[in-house]
Amino acid sequence: MRKIAVYVNFMNERYRRQLEEAASRLGFSLDCYDCPRDSGALAEKIGDYEVVYGHPEAALLKEATRLRWLCSDFAGVEGYLPSEVWPRPDCLLSNSSGAYGPAISEHIVMVLLMLLRRMPEYQAALARGQWPCYTPIRSVTGSHVVLLGTGDIGSHAARRLKALGARVTGVCRGGRSAEPAFDQVLPVSRLENALPQADALVLALPATAETRGILSRERLALLPPTAYVVNVGRGSAIDQDALVEALQGGRLAGAALDVMTPEPLPADHPLRTCPNTILTPHVSGNMALGLTCDLDVELFLRELERYARGEPLANLVDRTRGY
Amino acid sequence: MRKIAVYVNFMNERYRRQLEEAASRLGFSLDCYDCPRDSGALAEKIGDYEVVYGHPEAALLKEATRLRWLCSDFAGVEGYLPSEVWPRPDCLLSNSSGAYGPAISEHIVMVLLMLLRRMPEYQAALARGQWPCYTPIRSVTGSHVVLLGTGDIGSHAARRLKALGARVTGVCRGGRSAEPAFDQVLPVSRLENALPQADALVLALPATAETRGILSRERLALLPPTAYVVNVGRGSAIDQDALVEALQGGRLAGAALDVMTPEPLPADHPLRTCPNTILTPHVSGNMALGLTCDLDVELFLRELERYARGEPLANLVDRTRGY
Repeated sequence: MRKIAVYVNFMNERYRRQLEEAASRLGFSLDCYDCPRDSGALAEKIGDYEVVYGHPEAALLKEATRLRWLCSDFAGVEGYLPSEVWPRPDCLLSNSSGAYGPAISEHIVMVLLMLLRRMPEYQAALARGQWPCYTPIRSVTGSHVVLLGTGDIGSHAARRLKALGARVTGVCRGGRSAEPAFDQVLPVSRLENALPQADALVLALPATAETRGILSRERLALLPPTAYVVNVGRGSAIDQDALVEALQGGRLAGAALDVMTPEPLPADHPLRTCPNTILTPHVSGNMALGLTCDLDVELFLRELERYARGEPLANLVDRTRGY
Repeated sequence: MRKIAVYVNFMNERYRRQLEEAASRLGFSLDCYDCPRDSGALAEKIGDYEVVYGHPEAALLKEATRLRWLCSDFAGVEGYLPSEVWPRPDCLLSNSSGAYGPAISEHIVMVLLMLLRRMPEYQAALARGQWPCYTPIRSVTGSHVVLLGTGDIGSHAARRLKALGARVTGVCRGGRSAEPAFDQVLPVSRLENALPQADALVLALPATAETRGILSRERLALLPPTAYVVNVGRGSAIDQDALVEALQGGRLAGAALDVMTPEPLPADHPLRTCPNTILTPHVSGNMALGLTCDLDVELFLRELERYARGEPLANLVDRTRGY
């Protein structure tokens, strides 16, 4: 019988029933492994599975001799891009782009408001027993937010920021988006034109060869000193040393980083003490939000229907492009 | 000549020109005092003014023998409600309801997201050098927010929360609102029905005899232990001792208080160490946001036109009702 392994960290009875019902209807048997507790059990049986849904260690894939399709429950899949990790070159890789939009876009709205309203300063002063009033603070209404990355996360963020009164510029490879919440969408080649006009730059990009260091020292210097930087994609997108220097030197107003290099960030890393900097430990889109898990399972079930019918996967990753 | 005194803390050249132009066109002369720096100068001349725009000490009003109208630049005017502070019983009092909606509603969105996404826990753990992942977190999308107070601030908050996917119940004296963002509006007599269903209760109320202690110990106990309390109105609306006990005992999920009793809060006050509690020093709607100042001056100018034509003021405060 054709076999599916599920290896995620958010299983519950409802998801298990949904997954088993669909698998059985489509002619598969399905085994659930708890991530990371059952990593050993999965490793023993990995050779049995045609389909894996979840995020097994990349090093395990070589043993997955029957594998035809890995559906990652994450949106970022950089660990699975090298051709050496796969048992055969024709294995399909798909991601869960579409599950993270609500969770991560709410994080973006939250940290942007915290930066504009100077919460890092208020919280630090209150912790010292003070009772301060800082002026000025700023509003999302009327702010110009540049979203680098116009995929699922960027589009969800654009809708929410637009509803709150921001002007939203999207920047992406193709310079086009079907999402109407963007006031304008520019190709990456015009990023330099957008940066000097930004009140905030939000990076929502996958980790690919093209996005590595995309916010370079030179581009950081094009942002006005009143601008904030928010990163919810991957730490590799930013020249982090240049960011630290800009924050320390007051050449940027602040930053909110959910991703950084390395993770976890060492206790003595200079980012930890940069002024007006909000750090979160890579949790903006993790599986702590029930809605994200619901969407993730739904996405896999829709892909499984397509796979069983021999149709193309909607979230197929181009392993050379990286997303 | 009829005279206007302006006594605010956010004057700039643009506002001064707008105010002087309007005053002169309508037959007034206008003097600007910086608040609080020029309090002595204002006190010396207070007897000259027919109109005051700003927030003079209530104790000064007795000397304002020519005063016909005080337009407070604040939305909350509880200091001016006692009849004893006025030189004559027929003096008009108006407030600046309408200026604070954008600023305070953005504060509400920010702290609600911070609570739902467990930012107090993340920030405390990161400050201790940890790298935690808390589960579950919650989303504004699908949350049920009960807004106690459906005035300018409540309506602005309802629009933003609705746009972010929340279900929004308004509660007010009349049980009606013209704001379409409310999914339903209930009279205060049905507050008890709404509380057990709330994911968050937001208080945006003026300080009046009716709102004093409106969130009583008994009503607090009706909120589920998963609920958050947000207060942006006045501290007097909440039985604060009962709130502290509920937070300490885990009978509430958390709170965000921009107002409290007393202000400033003493360094050893138990609110400062309550779990999952975000304190801000009465800044959600202060004059640190340029948009708030713009709206405040605009509101006064529109009221001044009405006053000069002998028309009723739009923001006239009923001093017995308190708003």
